[in-house]
Order: sequence, then C-alpha cells, then structure tokens
Amino acid sequence: MGMTMTQKILAAAAGLDKVEAGQLIEAELDLVLGNDITSPVAIHEMDKMTVDTVFNKDKVALVMDHFIPNKDIKSAQHCKCVREFACKHDITNYFDVGEMGIEHALLPEKGLTVAGDVIIGADSHTCTYGALGAFSTGVGSTDMAAGMATGKAWFKVPSAIKFNIVGKPAKWVSGKDVILHIIGMIGVDGALYKSMEFTGEGIKNLSMDDRFTIANMAIEAGGKNGIFPVDDVAMAYMKEHSKREWKVFEADEDAVYDEEYTIDLSTLRPTIAFPHLPENTKTIDEITEDVKIDQVVIGSCTNGRIDDLRIAAEILADHKVKKGIRCIVIPATQKIYLRAMEEGLLKIFIEAGAVVSTPTCGPCLGGYMGILAENEHCVSTTNRNFVGRMGHVDSEIYLASPAVAAASAVTGKISSPEELGL
Amino acid sequence: MGMTMTQKILAAAAGLDKVEAGQLIEAELDLVLGNDITSPVAIHEMDKMTVDTVFNKDKVALVMDHFIPNKDIKSAQHCKCVREFACKHDITNYFDVGEMGIEHALLPEKGLTVAGDVIIGADSHTCTYGALGAFSTGVGSTDMAAGMATGKAWFKVPSAIKFNIVGKPAKWVSGKDVILHIIGMIGVDGALYKSMEFTGEGIKNLSMDDRFTIANMAIEAGGKNGIFPVDDVAMAYMKEHSKREWKVFEADEDAVYDEEYTIDLSTLRPTIAFPHLPENTKTIDEITEDVKIDQVVIGSCTNGRIDDLRIAAEILADHKVKKGIRCIVIPATQKIYLRAMEEGLLKIFIEAGAVVSTPTCGPCLGGYMGILAENEHCVSTTNRNFVGRMGHVDSEIYLASPAVAAASAVTGKISSPEELGL
Repeated sequence: MGMTMTQKILAAAAGLDKVEAGQLIEAELDLVLGNDITSPVAIHEMDKMTVDTVFNKDKVALVMDHFIPNKDIKSAQHCKCVREFACKHDITNYFDVGEMGIEHALLPEKGLTVAGDVIIGADSHTCTYGALGAFSTGVGSTDMAAGMATGKAWFKVPSAIKFNIVGKPAKWVSGKDVILHIIGMIGVDGALYKSMEFTGEGIKNLSMDDRFTIANMAIEAGGKNGIFPVDDVAMAYMKEHSKREWKVFEADEDAVYDEEYTIDLSTLRPTIAFPHLPENTKTIDEITEDVKIDQVVIGSCTNGRIDDLRIAAEILADHKVKKGIRCIVIPATQKIYLRAMEEGLLKIFIEAGAVVSTPTCGPCLGGYMGILAENEHCVSTTNRNFVGRMGHVDSEIYLASPAVAAASAVTGKISSPEELGL
Repeated sequence: MGMTMTQKILAAAAGLDKVEAGQLIEAELDLVLGNDITSPVAIHEMDKMTVDTVFNKDKVALVMDHFIPNKDIKSAQHCKCVREFACKHDITNYFDVGEMGIEHALLPEKGLTVAGDVIIGADSHTCTYGALGAFSTGVGSTDMAAGMATGKAWFKVPSAIKFNIVGKPAKWVSGKDVILHIIGMIGVDGALYKSMEFTGEGIKNLSMDDRFTIANMAIEAGGKNGIFPVDDVAMAYMKEHSKREWKVFEADEDAVYDEEYTIDLSTLRPTIAFPHLPENTKTIDEITEDVKIDQVVIGSCTNGRIDDLRIAAEILADHKVKKGIRCIVIPATQKIYLRAMEEGLLKIFIEAGAVVSTPTCGPCLGGYMGILAENEHCVSTTNRNFVGRMGHVDSEIYLASPAVAAASAVTGKISSPEELGL
C-alpha cells in the first residue's frame, strides 16, 4: 500500500522508509513560524524550558503582521517582546514594519518555503505553503515553542482526500471559487485532520496565486494540510523567489485515499460563502435576492496577492466604488504593494474611491482597518465568516473572490463582474 | 483704537461695526465641523434639542478621519451613528472611507474654508484654516451641536499677539520649525485665548503648507486662533481649490496687540520639541547627546501635506530607513496620497523601507497605526508630545519637521538632514 504525497514528505522528515495514516512520528522541521499574536506566547513558553536558544536561527520566522503598525498599546508590547527575542537570538527572518507582509504571502515571496519542506506555524493558515508542495500546518504556540527549541515536532500521520482537478476555469472564476466550492461540498469538517491532496491535469490552469488561495483555506474544511504537485509553475515560482534547494515528492500510484472527488473547473461559477460558515456557499446564480453591503475588503493571506489585485483593478478601472460603500484594498506584502503601484493598480483603486492599506491581516480577524458595526454587511476576500469575526456580533461577512468583491463594491450588493458587462 | 484681523472678521460676522477684546458676541458661522470622535457626542446633544434639522446642510462638515477604516467595534459604531445622521439630514460634506482625509487637510483642499470665514470645529486643531485668513477655532461637541442647530456661536473677542515674520528660512527649515520655535519661546500657555496674528514681509517665503502647519499649532501655545494675511499665495490656493467667494480682512494700522515679536526666519534652525510638552524645544545644534529612536511618524493634520512628503522623499530618495526603525508615512488625504504616488514619492518611501498608511490621524492621538510600547521613542511630525499621547505612558515623542523626521529614520537617532550630507 503506497503513501500519499504528504505521507512521503513526513516519512522522509522522520527518517523512515514508510509511514501510514494514524502513525505517530517525530519529524525534523525546516521552518517554525510565529506572528505578533502567537509568538509572545511561544516565547514565554520557551522561557520556561532549559534551552537557551533556538535550534537554528535561520529556520525560525517571526512575522509581525496582524496588528502593525501597532494598533494599540497591547499589540505594541507584544511586538516589542518578539523584537527583543529576535534580537537576542539573532533570528535571521524577523519581519517588522518596513519589510512587512502577511506571513503566508511573505514567506514564499522571501523564498523561505519550498517543496518538500516540513513547516509548522502558530497560525492556522500555515497550510498555505502546500501550494508549493511542502507539508505545512498550523499549530498552537506551545508547539511553536517546542519547535523553536528542538527543531522537531510530532505528528499523527494524516490520511488523505484526493481532489482530481480537471478543466479550465472561465473568466472571473479563480482559486477562491474553487476552494469555496469544495468547502461548500464537503463542509467545514469535511477534511478533519486529513490531507487535501490536489492533483490532475486541470492544475496547470491554476496560477501560483490561485494555488496559494486554495491551500490557504484547506483548514476551513478542517484539513491538516492542503498540498499541490510540484509542476513547472511551482518550480518557476521557487526559482524566482528562493535560493534554497527543493525536494519533489509524489504520491505513490497505489496510495490510498479516504475519498476522491473530481472538480471540473470549467463548470464552476463565482461562489460566495454566506454567514456564518465558509461551507454556506451559493453560486452567484443561486442568489435570488439583493444582498446589500456596506463594506468590501480585498486582501488577506487568502487573496491579497498580485493576481488578486490585478483582477480587482481590471474591474475597478472603468467603474467607481458606489457612494456609501467602503472599499478597502490591502496588498499582502510591501513587495506586492510596490508592484501594484508600479503596474498602476493602486492608482486605479484610489481613483475608483477605494483606500489602500499597509500590508496587514487587519480586519480579517477583527483586528483593525475595517471593523464592522452592528448590522453591517461586508463582502470580503478573507477566509472566515464566523459570527463577530470582523467586528460586531450582529455583522455579516460574505466570503468571495477578488472579482466578486470588486464588482460588489461597484454595485453595493453582491455581484459578479458579469453584471457590469465585463 | 483699531481692530486686529481676527476682530474685524468677528465684527463682520456679528453684524457689528466694532468689537473689542473681551466683548461677548454672537457670530454667524460659515462652517461647523466634526469628526468621528466628536460628532457622535454632538449628534446626541442635538437629539435633545427642539430642532429637527441642521441650519444649513452645506455648512456642516462631518469628517471620518481619526479611526477609519474603523479600528474597532466602538469606532465602527461611532462612524455608523454619524453616517446615519449625515444621510438623514442630507449633509453635503460628509467624508468617509474613499473620499477621506484628515479634516484639517481635507477641508481646505475641498474648498470649504476660505478667507473671512468664521469656522468652528469640534477638534482643537480647527485653528488650521487661519492659514487662509479665516477665523477658525476649536470647540467642544456641545458647541458643535448648537452650531449645527443654529448656525451661530458666541465668542469672547480675543486680544492678540503679533508675530512679525521677516527673512527667509534656510534649506531644511520649514513651517514646523517656525511654530516650534515660537512655542518654545512663549510656552504652551503663551497665547492663552489670544489670536496669534502672523504678518510681515517674511510670510512670502512660507509656502501654503508651511502656513497650515503654523496655524495648526496655534492651539499648542494656547491660542484661540492663528491667522495669516491673505496674500497672492493664499489667493492662488483658494482659486485652485474653492468655488466660494472669499473676503479679505486686514488689521487696522492702529490695532492694539498685547505683545509683538519679530521672528527672523533666516536665523531659525531645525527645532525639536522634547517630551513631554511642545514648548520643550531645542534646536538640532543644542542636542549634545544621541537620542535613539524606535519609530518615525510623518503625517497628521500638522505635517501630512504634499510639501511635507516631498521634503521627506528628498531625504529618503538616496537613503534607507535604518534597520530596526519603523518609519510610517501617512499622507493626509486621498488626493495627497494620489499626488504623492504620481510624483513617485510613495515609491521612494516603500523602497527606503517605510510604510505608507491610509490617510488617518492614526498614531498622533494614540489611535492606531503606530502605537508605542513602554520605553519606546518616536520622532513625529505631529503636534503633541504629551505623556502617553502615542501609546504607553512610558514612551516618548519628539516633535519635529518632516526633514528631521526623515533624517532621523535614516540614522536611528534625532538628526538633521545635514548629518547625511544633504
């Protein structure tokens, strides 16, 4: 009985020829990640240990991204704690105001995550790096502390669900629609502690940014990780961004999957997750009544990359944000911000009546930079629409692609770009 | 005995031929201003009155600027309250995310403040519009409510201090150095309830943005207002930005002043206000020991205008922000943001390692977007360095010009651009 792609990575990292689902293993880590919320907790945990430094100063990444520039005294104190820790331990990959970015967009861009890696991060969307063929998963701050100290982590080897991707998506259908469709199909616990392994000839029709979006939201189906094969697109990305060597693992032909689904991209439609769960999906065609909105957020570790901004700008180039709608665009990293500026996208956003924020997680988790009041509705390209996630408990979040978000900013209700004649 | 410039404006607005210092008058208002912090209070006060609408829907300006995009649920609720009020009363000049800006930069830019106006605003830096030859002063939210309801306000006519401006400032000396020099000289209560009337041949050497900065900080010397004569520079600005007619008032030749000072711009040096009062000034030459910093803020209603950004960009074009220093640039309005982008300034900031925020008051009043932790030091182009103003009670703010702020971002300590060989 063969191994899945994830199992092969974990076996190699554990120094074993073979692992199977359910087995407990200890794996060597290639990267341990924390952010400004989770790292302080991990640092305090490490203080209690008998170690006096991190296992490898090049293999710890500390990314200040949730609340910087600091939103309040508490977040300022947290960042200060991490900054001092990074300084004391000479952490190579410490990122603060200036070289900032949302962790899951920043680390691949900085070349710190490549195929074959085993990565843990004290942030649930750490699964993003599976887009490059890494095993990558979110952990708690205590596991982060242990990882920083020892360079190892234990895992229960996951079983897997196979998603066979075929076909080519229509204009205005992107990675976000793919993953929302899947979560709508299998539910928010549909992949509980399982690998979501994406494969098939249709993957060539998904850009790298589409894949980041899809892998990013594996956790929203309960997945332990999401992972893509390492094809030319992934290798071109890594070549451009990283100096590290990568290792390509492929699932065995006789690998066993708990379930298999075929997703025909050509049949997908713009898809929206209604409040208050990512599984509450409807296609744009299934929305029969106007859903009026107050705010649009285009950004986050899910959809704040350059492709996302290009799509939004294509829609906003010839349209204005409707009066009364707050449209907030948040490039995920400084590099993306600069690129978007050089391509003229930011000018399009500003002239259309949107605002462009510094890179930050910001409103996604109710941090700042667009918190909702009572009864307000927001179309957001972020990843969670739980009750109160973006502000008041009586506010509503509709998860969508950048295309739907931008079109909705123009009409003031949930809309597809097609409604604008695009 | 003649009248000062301020007294002549107030007399006209009160329908009187003559007023004198100390007299209580009731004046017609040309504009009543509130922001996202002060307007909700005023709106609740208005609810208690027997009026059912504002005196003139074109003469009320409601500017959401302190905490937008909303920093938290409370600020979101406040904005919602103002938004609904603006909608109910069909307020012409309601500004929210998208057409946003810091009130005191936004209103002149929108042409809503011109020479001869009498303006009250529920924000202490409302005195800014004196740069255009208006009488303009900060009031509490209750006065704002009464102003919105009646279009009138009572004032005790202020006496005045005359500042005779002569000479031409050296490179890297700007309006901020002028006003910090004056506040250092007369103290934070040096102009208590008085008009600060600026006059003299040196004024032609001060740009419109310099004058906004100077008038803006009149309140930091306790002034009731600060006011400039209406010269070609002011008229060119109003012609470019406003469709309104303006009225030019000039002080009588025999106007009486409590005090007179002559400020020779050519003798001024870059000036910094040390913690914790704007009057604690030192010139750059008087700083004998290194003052290390953690953060630099370039923005606010005091120094977030295009001239300010140009100066900062001139310094950062060939220099990088020092590693470990957080440099936050906050264009004061969307128009300034766009202009700075078109001129390539934002690209310079990003490439130098700074971040560019959405227009907001943000960190100036400890709101968000750069709050300080314990023992952190910040060089800021804002207007107040009171204890805890920008965060932790044990943090320190050093007020300075954009030139000093940008140079300090490069060196990591309080510096003049001259130290960089500029």
